[in-house]
Amino acid sequence: MGRQLTIIETADWLRERDNYLILTHRRPDGDTVGCAGALAQGLREIGKTAYILDNPEITPRYSQFVDDCWVPDGFKPDHVIIVDTATFDLFPKNGDEYKDTVSLCIDHHPSNPLYAEYNCMDVTTASCGEVIYEILMALSGSISEKSAERLYVAVSTDSGCFAFANTTANTLRVASLLVEAGAPNRKLNRLLFRTKTRARMKIESMIVAGLELHFDGKVAISSITNEMMAAANADEDDVDDIASMPGTVEGVLAGITIREMTSTQDCKVSVRTSPLVDAHAISEHFGGGGHQMASGFSLEKSIPEIKELLLEVLKKSFPD
Amino acid sequence: MGRQLTIIETADWLRERDNYLILTHRRPDGDTVGCAGALAQGLREIGKTAYILDNPEITPRYSQFVDDCWVPDGFKPDHVIIVDTATFDLFPKNGDEYKDTVSLCIDHHPSNPLYAEYNCMDVTTASCGEVIYEILMALSGSISEKSAERLYVAVSTDSGCFAFANTTANTLRVASLLVEAGAPNRKLNRLLFRTKTRARMKIESMIVAGLELHFDGKVAISSITNEMMAAANADEDDVDDIASMPGTVEGVLAGITIREMTSTQDCKVSVRTSPLVDAHAISEHFGGGGHQMASGFSLEKSIPEIKELLLEVLKKSFPD
Repeated sequence: MGRQLTIIETADWLRERDNYLILTHRRPDGDTVGCAGALAQGLREIGKTAYILDNPEITPRYSQFVDDCWVPDGFKPDHVIIVDTATFDLFPKNGDEYKDTVSLCIDHHPSNPLYAEYNCMDVTTASCGEVIYEILMALSGSISEKSAERLYVAVSTDSGCFAFANTTANTLRVASLLVEAGAPNRKLNRLLFRTKTRARMKIESMIVAGLELHFDGKVAISSITNEMMAAANADEDDVDDIASMPGTVEGVLAGITIREMTSTQDCKVSVRTSPLVDAHAISEHFGGGGHQMASGFSLEKSIPEIKELLLEVLKKSFPD
Repeated sequence: MGRQLTIIETADWLRERDNYLILTHRRPDGDTVGCAGALAQGLREIGKTAYILDNPEITPRYSQFVDDCWVPDGFKPDHVIIVDTATFDLFPKNGDEYKDTVSLCIDHHPSNPLYAEYNCMDVTTASCGEVIYEILMALSGSISEKSAERLYVAVSTDSGCFAFANTTANTLRVASLLVEAGAPNRKLNRLLFRTKTRARMKIESMIVAGLELHFDGKVAISSITNEMMAAANADEDDVDDIASMPGTVEGVLAGITIREMTSTQDCKVSVRTSPLVDAHAISEHFGGGGHQMASGFSLEKSIPEIKELLLEVLKKSFPD
């Protein structure tokens, strides 16, 4: 287990070193990408060399915010930093070689075992972006327009545009300061929250058609097969945050999404709950984890098999 | 045209008087109801008598926040206040008698002609709630939990949970302070933004399944038949604002919703456009009208007949 650093200590740590390579997590979302981009930008603004390791799974929706950050061939970093990445399992495939040499991890996931040499953690924030915001403020006392835009992407996506249950007064405060610093929230909200691709609409429609309600409507289970993805012509971008869908049905306390990955026998399960139900505990049963209200796990079983196992476990949380 | 008051002057004005009746606008939304409820509460907290005139059009979604505020029979107010109401046209039907005797209007709409004797206006805010927030702070230096909850309803609904283009750094700042003051944003977001009835989900899913794209994806036409409404078990509440759906598809400049009303030969058509397309002009063709980006009309024809007529008219706006 590595050492923990405060915000101020992290800023000092960054100021005293140089030549950084920043890693993002597998299936990169707005938070990990926005954090990496803002951190690279903030470090560059104080004269450091900082790059982001290319993430093969990044989508155009997010890559546009870090296009000037990708690491050039042959760069030899002195320090590897990873952001918003709770466990080794979430390292990108091309980041495997850095697992044992991560100098600094900046994160907000309670399940993070502090695997890096140094760790800057705040498990109370909705986004890792809020942590990076404080670090950049400690580093230089201000936030540039470019960093503000990237951090707004991080903070707003991880909080579902401030509608998710993880949104705190601090989330809104940081967002306000980012908009004041020049984050173009109109443009970003339209891009991130108010426009749907045709494929997204189609896959949502299919998910609703197949939605199953259990335990008196308290649990909603949705399934996404590779066949559905193909029929909707949907890619990774189109299913971003789709796991929050089943939880939006009135009366549902636990929304579960089972998605086929490489085959019909390899599924990723996302669990989203209201405060009354412990999402982490549900996923822990299957070797996964996460937060109190958002967790996940993977199983090499089919959707019907996973449903059956899940319903068995959920019986304890939802007795008759 | 009445006199304009600053925030401080408005607080002084309220402190010097008593026995208030507060009015909300026709088809009351979260902003007008939340503002009225918070203002009544804030006035009561400094020892004043304040009631809200019952609004016959209020829905349970919002009335729950002002249940302790309705005016009792026989109350004779010394001063009438109206919130978030730009013009006399928007007065509730039972408020007609007060049109000439409104003492104070608190609002944020640029179209407000300052019809009241005294007016506290801030046209830069996303919500009237932001104005009331400042008034309550000037009045007592703090915001109670009850007022915070009501103001969060006001600010969040008028800004579309901070996703609409009107959202500013100030909107987010006030929201942050309201959450800090005890506004239960988790519960409220779930109620106001993150919950859909099963019927709403079903009807949305059906609409997407039947969505037609024309003119290279620039026009989206959706249809809602009475048969679909019955199959989804949907009522009027379930299709609130459903006309905005086709316009959210990426690339669509005009989103059109054709809905059967009393029969398959009696339809209501809603047109929603991006700034590049004149919605009013489209509806005017069919004897309807409205605004630049939102209009509508009714026709005693079937959905397929209306589609054909519409495509003919739209050809002019969308040449090959």
